[in-house]
Amino acid sequence: MARDYVHWNNNATTFLPIDEMVIGSVRTRATDSYVTDSAASATAYSCGIKSYNGAIGVNDDYAPCGTVLEAAHLQGFKTGLIVTSRITHATPATFASHIYDRDLESEIALQEIGYAHPLGRTVDILLGGGRCFFTPNTTATSCRKDSIDALALAKGLGYTVFSDRKTFDSKKLTMPYLGLFTDDHMSYEADRDPTKEPSLKEMAIRGINDLYAASKDSEKGFFVLVEASRIDHAGHANDPVGHLYDILAYNSAMLAMRQWIDKHPDSPTTLISTADHECGGLTVGVEIDSAPDYWYAPEHFSSASATSGSLAAKWAAYTGSDLRGYLKTEIFGKYGITTPTEEEYSEGLALKADKEFAKVLTKSLSKRLGVNWATGGHTAADVTLYGWGVGVQSFRGMRENNEVGLFIAKQLGLKLEGVTERLQKNESWVKEWVMPKEGGKVVRRGVKGHHHHH
Amino acid sequence: MARDYVHWNNNATTFLPIDEMVIGSVRTRATDSYVTDSAASATAYSCGIKSYNGAIGVNDDYAPCGTVLEAAHLQGFKTGLIVTSRITHATPATFASHIYDRDLESEIALQEIGYAHPLGRTVDILLGGGRCFFTPNTTATSCRKDSIDALALAKGLGYTVFSDRKTFDSKKLTMPYLGLFTDDHMSYEADRDPTKEPSLKEMAIRGINDLYAASKDSEKGFFVLVEASRIDHAGHANDPVGHLYDILAYNSAMLAMRQWIDKHPDSPTTLISTADHECGGLTVGVEIDSAPDYWYAPEHFSSASATSGSLAAKWAAYTGSDLRGYLKTEIFGKYGITTPTEEEYSEGLALKADKEFAKVLTKSLSKRLGVNWATGGHTAADVTLYGWGVGVQSFRGMRENNEVGLFIAKQLGLKLEGVTERLQKNESWVKEWVMPKEGGKVVRRGVKGHHHHH
Repeated sequence: MARDYVHWNNNATTFLPIDEMVIGSVRTRATDSYVTDSAASATAYSCGIKSYNGAIGVNDDYAPCGTVLEAAHLQGFKTGLIVTSRITHATPATFASHIYDRDLESEIALQEIGYAHPLGRTVDILLGGGRCFFTPNTTATSCRKDSIDALALAKGLGYTVFSDRKTFDSKKLTMPYLGLFTDDHMSYEADRDPTKEPSLKEMAIRGINDLYAASKDSEKGFFVLVEASRIDHAGHANDPVGHLYDILAYNSAMLAMRQWIDKHPDSPTTLISTADHECGGLTVGVEIDSAPDYWYAPEHFSSASATSGSLAAKWAAYTGSDLRGYLKTEIFGKYGITTPTEEEYSEGLALKADKEFAKVLTKSLSKRLGVNWATGGHTAADVTLYGWGVGVQSFRGMRENNEVGLFIAKQLGLKLEGVTERLQKNESWVKEWVMPKEGGKVVRRGVKGHHHHH
Repeated sequence: MARDYVHWNNNATTFLPIDEMVIGSVRTRATDSYVTDSAASATAYSCGIKSYNGAIGVNDDYAPCGTVLEAAHLQGFKTGLIVTSRITHATPATFASHIYDRDLESEIALQEIGYAHPLGRTVDILLGGGRCFFTPNTTATSCRKDSIDALALAKGLGYTVFSDRKTFDSKKLTMPYLGLFTDDHMSYEADRDPTKEPSLKEMAIRGINDLYAASKDSEKGFFVLVEASRIDHAGHANDPVGHLYDILAYNSAMLAMRQWIDKHPDSPTTLISTADHECGGLTVGVEIDSAPDYWYAPEHFSSASATSGSLAAKWAAYTGSDLRGYLKTEIFGKYGITTPTEEEYSEGLALKADKEFAKVLTKSLSKRLGVNWATGGHTAADVTLYGWGVGVQSFRGMRENNEVGLFIAKQLGLKLEGVTERLQKNESWVKEWVMPKEGGKVVRRGVKGHHHHH
């Protein structure tokens, strides 16, 4: 969808930066469902094991598994987690925390900073959103269920803590640092205010440069996870505009990282990139009249400049009197729908303060573009595997998702088993922070009964 | 969808034969639409050029382009076209014929056998369906618009012509041969009567063995196209059962060909496989209640044994009195729907003699499986690139579809330009058989106005 929009804009561009980095594809099945969630698939990437939907760095028996980030830290590498979601969201969480349920983000926050982690601080750079899980529930914007001030704890553990762009841009910023720019997820690229939030590319390159500088005199290098987290969220929202601009932001970050690798032969680096899963069941192409009149009309993206969610909020907040005019130019118009139908006007006016209004936008634009969404959830589609730099040729082909974690470990010479053993030996921590409480009922997210006949 | 069904049947099988052969992916854009049809994409594979939707071995100006099959034939290779569609359908057609509109299958038939082809006979083995385009319109089952007996012409050109399984199995069958087992497409694998129609694997291996034997004493080898054509048709019909069994038949054929290559080091062979496009916008995975309860329930395939189309025909033909009982066990039951809802019974009874009944089956089963179809047409999805044997390592990564044709030419040392020149020089043939008639209106299938702003 994104590639063909770019091609429509400029016929000379027939592929995106990531297209030159394709090395294969990845199967994503979880242990309890053929359709994985982020937690299970990211645990495959972090620990090299398959687990159940909802699992954060734990196996099917809720026992913690050593991650590539933790092993890297223990073996002298510098480490980072750089995402556009809440930093406590499933993917980053699986690299530096261990808990049976991905929703326990208050606990995940305390583990990620090393406060409730048996290895102490394992992450040198944390960049993303999700500050609300670090502020005590005595503050208005907190998402915590307790009064713990995790930002204060992070400072105590040595982190430079900040939330502003100015500090992010400062040459004086020193590691370890924890930069959380927003309470919830960072903004979609289409909605991002660059004076307040850096782009994924900017965070990735800043982080990599800092990790590189800090490990330059060491025999070891660095491990960093960079996630374009919100592509998934745009998939859940079935929002083509959010999806397009976050895919392009991901491409920019990938291109910058690839160029960084090419410019640093002194720091031989392996880049592996993939998705934890497809989301939304997005397909491009609509049939008109009779086959084979197939089409996709990317030109409808050309005047779109904001996500459906932000425009729905803007519409709800409008207090002026020119409802129809505002709806046309400031809402539909900003979403690429230059000529709404009467039915769309009616729906828009009726749903002014309703969250469902976002769906009026996404459905109207998707129809004009000729793109389809199959679900508000994930699909079992294989995902593309991208690579650049040292050793990726040896990893070409189709892989099971947990092979990705094992490949990273192999490339960096990491010993995951030792970390797993060390974590599991800490029984009081496992009991308090990792496993479900005794007698507590755990609802597995995967629909186990559906998938196995044994 | 197929892989996870196989895994559900046997947890030890976590991947299909083709999964071990992944070498990259392919972009499929046509010149006049971002969503290609088979003709444009197969022309990319046969000639190494991008063309418009509907183009059979011609460029955007309707001029014929030399194909890898024709070049192979001219340079001394043996050649074959082995498909499960009509042999005159777009994909096989683009390798041995040239015409501006894929629907002109009467003309395509005459070109494929070398009767209306300036190079004469270029194909040594033709196997598939589509006999109706070879029989004169004076016969009941003919699809021709004229009284030409193309089977007689083929015999005159040296072909052994047959339509029965016994001849196919005979050791005495000699090349060149034209085996057309059905009037229309060959049966879907799920519906196939093996006493009448060979499987794709059987056709592929028989053909390859014959081509190998015929070229054993030559310095050149053979070129063969093998197409699991009906996966696409199952996609158009949104039929999960037809799709599943044709995908598995494709896997069997791929495994057999790969093993053939491994057993014949004396005949160094390159196998490249991909799709011309995705069809149906098939995605696997449904959301229940609230995210992330994702699931796919392949167990509903376990009692399915026929396609929706064949069951709809069977239901229309039923003349007995136990309508509900027959509908339950012989129709719904054979499609994997063991317990139809009352609504499904009602629809089934109401649509007994209606072609739309097939959709009752496909929708009911898709819902139970947790699979979605976005369209009855094609999508712009990138397709997976598979390879085995000589030189495929050099072709890894993401490719534009026309690079596939160029790679085949390179591997076999084929000079396509010379063939193109020779074809285009034959002006009377080009005028009579390839180009639209002067003054005739050509309706391009792609929706050109939608896709370019220049």
